[in-house]
Amino acid sequence: MSELSKNKIKWIRSLHLKKHRDELGLYIVEGEKMVNEALKFSLDSIETIIHTLEFDISDFKGESYQISHKELEQISTLKTPNKAFAILRQKREFPSINSDKLIIALDGIQDPGNLGTILRIADWYGISDIVCSKNTVDWYNPKVVQASMGAIFRVQIHYIDLFDWLNTCSLKIYGALLEGKNIYTDKHLENGVLLMGNEGNGISSDLLPLITHPISIPRFGEAESLNVSVATAILVSEFKRSVFDS
Amino acid sequence: MSELSKNKIKWIRSLHLKKHRDELGLYIVEGEKMVNEALKFSLDSIETIIHTLEFDISDFKGESYQISHKELEQISTLKTPNKAFAILRQKREFPSINSDKLIIALDGIQDPGNLGTILRIADWYGISDIVCSKNTVDWYNPKVVQASMGAIFRVQIHYIDLFDWLNTCSLKIYGALLEGKNIYTDKHLENGVLLMGNEGNGISSDLLPLITHPISIPRFGEAESLNVSVATAILVSEFKRSVFDS
Repeated sequence: MSELSKNKIKWIRSLHLKKHRDELGLYIVEGEKMVNEALKFSLDSIETIIHTLEFDISDFKGESYQISHKELEQISTLKTPNKAFAILRQKREFPSINSDKLIIALDGIQDPGNLGTILRIADWYGISDIVCSKNTVDWYNPKVVQASMGAIFRVQIHYIDLFDWLNTCSLKIYGALLEGKNIYTDKHLENGVLLMGNEGNGISSDLLPLITHPISIPRFGEAESLNVSVATAILVSEFKRSVFDS
Repeated sequence: MSELSKNKIKWIRSLHLKKHRDELGLYIVEGEKMVNEALKFSLDSIETIIHTLEFDISDFKGESYQISHKELEQISTLKTPNKAFAILRQKREFPSINSDKLIIALDGIQDPGNLGTILRIADWYGISDIVCSKNTVDWYNPKVVQASMGAIFRVQIHYIDLFDWLNTCSLKIYGALLEGKNIYTDKHLENGVLLMGNEGNGISSDLLPLITHPISIPRFGEAESLNVSVATAILVSEFKRSVFDS
């Protein structure tokens, strides 16, 4: 237990930015619930825990600092910081993609809240791997980490050349399009790749020819579109519900 | 076309706050897409349009101001303001609730992004009415309006005493609970009320006894919960897919 120097505070705040996170190979996890998830699911990667008096770290043997709520506000990325702040080492390597399960592929998702929410959906539905184009938002962005609600410790995410990967993969490629087949009547949803496009522009034109099964969520009302994380949830639900068909 | 005075800018900025919005009976709609939706679906309620040179308002006969992008930044609630900003009159009265359709009931939703997203889901699935407890976030909050993507002009939202309403309504009341019936195997999803609880605490204890059909989304993985707007989407999808059953 020791005090945070001004230099240390400055150094921690530099982790708010992707450039510094990547240089140092670190990222931030915040709040009582998320730091407890990190302790449970990613203990080996925790570098430092910074916490207020109320947060119990008696089981943690690594570097720690007990600070005031005011100091926590200085280092936090949150509007209302909550008891704990951890610095973790980024995971650089993952086991290979498990192609026996449904895989979510993301083409240029930009909003960190959307990526975090999609991680949480994957975690709920037992999906192991998310494959992302290289222009997808950084999964170590604090807003992604927080929105994932711990999924970041359990779901694997792979940043790759999406065209090359889809082009050589032998799985069915389901693309979410406005003019695809009605998911409620198409009875051929099986494991494969579920490809979701960018918030504004949808799936890139170079990836469209690689889609083997264009699918779509029927519209009953007047909305122009659904949010991409909401659409992902509805589609994943349709894939997984077949487990209960008899 | 005229300039915005300093006083007018101050007055507009006061609409960022619920207190002033309610006193004046006004709310804010922002950005090219949303202001165009307002022109199309809610023309009669537009009080003022404030816009940059690029935004065409030749068809609008009401009060308008053409301003610079820098001035737009001064009045905007957005990080990246986009061409247009409109002030609309709040809708005070709605036709009665259409109980021939699925109705979404929200118990104390706090996050404006969630409420806006749920409005958008309702709009996509042709749901006409959302019923909210009085402690649900204000639907005229700018973040709700923006996240709704125009649904705010098409879906009716009613702030009521949720206990009284549910207690006297003769519809089936489906409550989203962690320990409800599996929605993928329960074949009795019909029109009625779909009750969704608060982000942290779920459905209030006083409402629980009013639920006639507890339902739940089966979990396949390790996430503790789903985001409430995501859960709403998955549940509404399950209700609406039966239209295609034959």
